[in-house]
Amino acid sequence: MQSPQEFIASLLSIMNRLTSTVTSAVFSSSKSSVRRIAMSSSHAAHVLTLDNLNPAVKKMEYAVRGPLVIRAVNLEKELAQGAQKPFKSVIKANIGDAHAMGQKPITFIRQVLACVSCPSLMDSKTFPSDVIEHAKTILAGCGGQSTGAYSQSNGIDVIRQHVAEYIQRRDGGIKSNPDDILLSGGASESIRNVLKLFINRDAAKKTGVMVPIPQYPLYSATIEEFGLGQVSYFLEESKNWGLDEAELERSYQESLKEFDTKVIVVINPGNPTGQVLSRENIEQIIKFAHKHKLFVLADEVYQDNVYAEGSAFHSFKKVLIEMGEPYSKVELASFHSVSKGYMGECGMRGGYVELMNLDQDVYVEFKKMISAKLCSTILGQVVLDCVVNPPKPGEPSYDLWLEEKTAVLKSLKERATIVKDAYASLDGITSNPVQGAMYCFPAVKIPQKAIEKAKSLGQEPDFFYAMQLLESTGVCVVPGSGFGQRKGTYHFRTTILPQPALMKDMMERFSGFHNKFMKEYA
Amino acid sequence: MQSPQEFIASLLSIMNRLTSTVTSAVFSSSKSSVRRIAMSSSHAAHVLTLDNLNPAVKKMEYAVRGPLVIRAVNLEKELAQGAQKPFKSVIKANIGDAHAMGQKPITFIRQVLACVSCPSLMDSKTFPSDVIEHAKTILAGCGGQSTGAYSQSNGIDVIRQHVAEYIQRRDGGIKSNPDDILLSGGASESIRNVLKLFINRDAAKKTGVMVPIPQYPLYSATIEEFGLGQVSYFLEESKNWGLDEAELERSYQESLKEFDTKVIVVINPGNPTGQVLSRENIEQIIKFAHKHKLFVLADEVYQDNVYAEGSAFHSFKKVLIEMGEPYSKVELASFHSVSKGYMGECGMRGGYVELMNLDQDVYVEFKKMISAKLCSTILGQVVLDCVVNPPKPGEPSYDLWLEEKTAVLKSLKERATIVKDAYASLDGITSNPVQGAMYCFPAVKIPQKAIEKAKSLGQEPDFFYAMQLLESTGVCVVPGSGFGQRKGTYHFRTTILPQPALMKDMMERFSGFHNKFMKEYA
Repeated sequence: MQSPQEFIASLLSIMNRLTSTVTSAVFSSSKSSVRRIAMSSSHAAHVLTLDNLNPAVKKMEYAVRGPLVIRAVNLEKELAQGAQKPFKSVIKANIGDAHAMGQKPITFIRQVLACVSCPSLMDSKTFPSDVIEHAKTILAGCGGQSTGAYSQSNGIDVIRQHVAEYIQRRDGGIKSNPDDILLSGGASESIRNVLKLFINRDAAKKTGVMVPIPQYPLYSATIEEFGLGQVSYFLEESKNWGLDEAELERSYQESLKEFDTKVIVVINPGNPTGQVLSRENIEQIIKFAHKHKLFVLADEVYQDNVYAEGSAFHSFKKVLIEMGEPYSKVELASFHSVSKGYMGECGMRGGYVELMNLDQDVYVEFKKMISAKLCSTILGQVVLDCVVNPPKPGEPSYDLWLEEKTAVLKSLKERATIVKDAYASLDGITSNPVQGAMYCFPAVKIPQKAIEKAKSLGQEPDFFYAMQLLESTGVCVVPGSGFGQRKGTYHFRTTILPQPALMKDMMERFSGFHNKFMKEYA
Repeated sequence: MQSPQEFIASLLSIMNRLTSTVTSAVFSSSKSSVRRIAMSSSHAAHVLTLDNLNPAVKKMEYAVRGPLVIRAVNLEKELAQGAQKPFKSVIKANIGDAHAMGQKPITFIRQVLACVSCPSLMDSKTFPSDVIEHAKTILAGCGGQSTGAYSQSNGIDVIRQHVAEYIQRRDGGIKSNPDDILLSGGASESIRNVLKLFINRDAAKKTGVMVPIPQYPLYSATIEEFGLGQVSYFLEESKNWGLDEAELERSYQESLKEFDTKVIVVINPGNPTGQVLSRENIEQIIKFAHKHKLFVLADEVYQDNVYAEGSAFHSFKKVLIEMGEPYSKVELASFHSVSKGYMGECGMRGGYVELMNLDQDVYVEFKKMISAKLCSTILGQVVLDCVVNPPKPGEPSYDLWLEEKTAVLKSLKERATIVKDAYASLDGITSNPVQGAMYCFPAVKIPQKAIEKAKSLGQEPDFFYAMQLLESTGVCVVPGSGFGQRKGTYHFRTTILPQPALMKDMMERFSGFHNKFMKEYA
């Protein structure tokens, strides 16, 4: 068990290795050199040391699972071992992990999973007939009719067919071709695969990838790991985290000094910012991508999570096709996942990418590249199949499926409002509405005295704030600095996923802490 | 549907992009430039083209899923659509995919999977009590007691604990620490993660990675993708694919001109070569690694697949610990998987790496790196749990589990002998015994006239042989050139996985083809 002192010490050690931030660059680099000297003797014994470790690995950060979360996990273990804390439980509002926060699985999905895992169950009367039919269709597409066989690297044919049908229904009949769809272990794997295509170490300039700020740190971490160049464009907090064309242009033009910018990432609905892009905004982005010859990565994993009146999800594919030529020829990769939506099946690792307008030779190479990873989990593919090909009206499982789905989405919608209102009611906190996705990203006016205290500890002010929150209440959120934010502003991301009773508990702990913090550092 | 002519054309197009091989370098490069000019107009329309695609992606190859397999899949589709061929079915002996070849799943594993997927099944009397207990233990370790929650990136605690206990039993009580174990989507993901640590683009020389030749092409593909340097050491075919110390030394010394060689990969039991290393051979390798400060990657995914009398599996970890200092301090990563062994659950994507003697700071970075990929599939982790923590004597599931396991291993052992004997009985084919793993890697004396014919088509001679085999009999094997072989020798890899009746059918088709081929090109 780590003491808080030991923990802070190990945190500082981790922070020393962070890439420079405006506030801590000098501090970090001086500490690093001390550290390197101190460790050189132990290094001599190892082939692989911090000195020769892949530099990209050293630099990359993933705040959603960063030091705060490591501390939260340790706090949970300490509580389980009987340690005395000012709280009885840890509330992990750091990650979009619905089941961990008490959401129940959709019955239909889990019954199909049981059947394809243990086909003898299909002989009994345990499950409804449509569940069994669904399972049989999938098994017929598996090698040896077993989910224990590899699939082709792009996924099981019949499931890719169902994905295409789903996309076609979603987009009002616009054609989707199963050959353009590749299944993967969650959306993350597909996002990484597509970004990998743009690595070009031999080129004079790194390939620039435009990402929204604030962004989901999978992008910054992968860009760092792959040696690509991050090109940040800021979302407008005052315009409900919308996109501003002038800012896109500024970001692109400035990037050209350093990078060969070829990709733009858009997250819609937004993570961590919870906005839902208007159709006009999407058209602007597509025109912008066309004008500057950019490949569009549309992270649309929250497409079922839209709550606000007047907001609707528009897929990039649909808008692009409806805009006609030349815009309909823009290269697009659209990602979806079983981890979010109403099902929240994060642990199953199911997802897909649909590729549009890709150069066919590049596509051959892409499929060759993923073949070395064999295939994504078959049971994750099965969950995806259940999501894109759910029970139909009149089928035995339909009513329960619809009831469960509707209840989850209704409850998320309620919590989206409750969370935002609760935060916005506190002094020193402002928040945009949560139009979609699973997150609220409030701004905190951190007092000057707290900023100075944080600096004295070598921490970002919002990291300091979030760590204090965790240590005194057990509530784990992610500081805004993990996603990026305008200089001098501070935020945190919290999910809207705790179930209502837990949510009430969390907000009470939070407001108690916040008011005390603001007073202490006033 | 592709005609054979179209297929050959697309094959040639793929081959043009292959990295240079001794026989086809000139041919390929001239073809490539023709091709590039012809395509430049279409390229203008795309952001991402063959010209600016990640060069490593263009270069990498993965023969186990290469052009032959693509053709085999197409042949299957053509047959399903009623096309007339000289055969009625395709036999895929190209990949170690036991269930696809008719092996049945282990009942215990699938029952546990059903319970953790659909926990309401645990309330009925459907399954034995130990299955339910097993499932409950796992669910207690899942967030929200659901397999739909993410786990920590290194995997579920209780499963890592069970893996450590398994290793400890396997290695006669030598301690294993759950903190040194990380679960992953098959062994492949862990192998890629460990190799990723050695990328160092800023260094003057690439990091060299010693790999056995013949090797499993995951290694060559990953080394290419990551920009590492492949350092080949040849296994001795005449010594039953054993390792020769002088050859290790030659390979290492020669590599230093070009690379900073830091890693040695060993595959034991061997893939594609089917040998099982003696304890003396393992000691030699460890001494060699210590002498030259090499990090050892031990690919031990076939540890349960040892068939030959007098052969036994010795884990690198056990040998290294028993050798004592300084050898016990050699850095080691050992990989295991649920895809092979007696369970053959390839589609589940479960595996682990145990890391020994890693620099602790490097380990912190490693865990940070994998956190951006969230976690491996929970159900894959569950299958791994069933493998490392199977029913114990006296428990209700024990007898059936043991019976099923024993039957699979016994049948594999029989087929190991049958396959080797069948191939070795043919004129122009020789083969070492299949001591372990799932493959036979016979040598074929391809006649000079066939070699010339292959060259005229821009193909490797063994690729030509294997493609002729596929087109005329439907039997899909992988040419030796996909694994590497000594110049002037030709091989193919076939699995021993087809069930007995199918195996007989395959051998009949094969011998008919081979005799005809040898006569035709005599």
